Amino acid sequence: MSLKRTVFFISDRTGITTEMLGHSLLAQFESVEFQQHTLPFIDSPEKAREVVKRIELAAREDGVRPLVFSTLIGPDIRDIVATGNALFIDLFSTFIDGLEAELGVPPSHAIGLSHRVGNAYSHRIEAINYTLNHDDGTTIKSLDQSDIIILGVSRSGKTPTCLYLALQFGIQAANYPLTPDDDGRIRFPAALLPYRHKLYGLTIAAERLREIRNERRPDSRYASLENCRDELRQVEELYRRENIRYLDTTSKSIEEISTTIMQEVRLSRRLF
Amino acid sequence: MSLKRTVFFISDRTGITTEMLGHSLLAQFESVEFQQHTLPFIDSPEKAREVVKRIELAAREDGVRPLVFSTLIGPDIRDIVATGNALFIDLFSTFIDGLEAELGVPPSHAIGLSHRVGNAYSHRIEAINYTLNHDDGTTIKSLDQSDIIILGVSRSGKTPTCLYLALQFGIQAANYPLTPDDDGRIRFPAALLPYRHKLYGLTIAAERLREIRNERRPDSRYASLENCRDELRQVEELYRRENIRYLDTTSKSIEEISTTIMQEVRLSRRLF
Repeated sequence: MSLKRTVFFISDRTGITTEMLGHSLLAQFESVEFQQHTLPFIDSPEKAREVVKRIELAAREDGVRPLVFSTLIGPDIRDIVATGNALFIDLFSTFIDGLEAELGVPPSHAIGLSHRVGNAYSHRIEAINYTLNHDDGTTIKSLDQSDIIILGVSRSGKTPTCLYLALQFGIQAANYPLTPDDDGRIRFPAALLPYRHKLYGLTIAAERLREIRNERRPDSRYASLENCRDELRQVEELYRRENIRYLDTTSKSIEEISTTIMQEVRLSRRLF
Repeated sequence: MSLKRTVFFISDRTGITTEMLGHSLLAQFESVEFQQHTLPFIDSPEKAREVVKRIELAAREDGVRPLVFSTLIGPDIRDIVATGNALFIDLFSTFIDGLEAELGVPPSHAIGLSHRVGNAYSHRIEAINYTLNHDDGTTIKSLDQSDIIILGVSRSGKTPTCLYLALQFGIQAANYPLTPDDDGRIRFPAALLPYRHKLYGLTIAAERLREIRNERRPDSRYASLENCRDELRQVEELYRRENIRYLDTTSKSIEEISTTIMQEVRLSRRLF
């Protein structure tokens, strides 16, 4: 039994969905070392035959057949790839027959229907532009057009969260930093008063914040554990006092933070 | 046979993978109108029972059972949800037994192994910060640390492409605008000479560029079809003359543009 395996994620489009589901399946087998390759845009018989060659080569070199995760839609191309010496895991066709039977209509077998172009593209770009223009409190202009305004101390995860909300869900996400005034106190920014209902706070463990800040400005007062603790204590008090929902981002991925926010404030995604 | 169906995407984590594969399966049945709901973080028996109630309600209201796409990992929670009156499509367990048999090791059934936290999180944040700091030619400092430098005329898709590369793949993606000088000519930016091998150009159909620019500055010379055509002709000539690979982004999604670039320049993803 080999504990090292070659894995191919094969798609006629980007392969991103294939990879994502493949990763979560493989994550269940931690003791195996996977050598992973994504092969996107496999949309012709020629490319499919090249893939078969790569599969055969890996099987010979490893002395054990590779795993193939496929979301290939076209039956012809899929059939070619499936001839390779591999465990062929068909993330797509496995479910299509059941869906056809249930829905009573035949599948179109058309490729590339799931990505966002046209209007959805424009909408997404607008959301990204909005988010970039409202990053880190750059402007309070047109905050009324935001879907949400994320608050937090410096380096608590505001920017990546907002960008992910914009890219993945088409949400116009502004963010605004909570920073100490000259007297060291963090106050509720008056500019945000009219948008109270859109505010959402982030917090993070002081130790983690210190690590992150220390990478940016090593050994600074800004990055000191004492300062991190003080700022976080103040913003958490502020969130509670002002009745602002908030989330601890320590050990959460950007996906998890974003999805949690979407769910808690009942934001509807603007992209499908 | 109803041509309207309620769909639930159910996950013990974010539900993003569930949605993505679900969407590409549903996209095969264009004549059906799907009412889609994502239910993330279903990680307790109580939440699972709430889900069953929602499924039953939808089945009663629609007069036809809903579709459930599940990536639930824990068998207990999955078994509860599967009791609902729905077509239960198990995107996870369907494949786990086959993988177990092939790999010869048992799956851990642990939840939440697939998202990026810890080091991967830091790496991702660094890539995002790098990309934001090198957006639209803001600075030519530390361009040597870029993985890629995207070129293109204003509004050809540079920024969203770079952000996606950073978020999804952990790539440090800079971008640099190609704009006409006072005499109307677009020249190769001298600052980029040392990074020739990292350059990748975008282009787009003139009509599409006009549409996009027109949303930003309606009826301007900048947005005129004539000007768009002229700029695009010049950059395409420049790409060819300077031997810079390039891609037409018209009618491509951000995912497709990013994946194509990754593949063409053989960039390795820095996040798994």
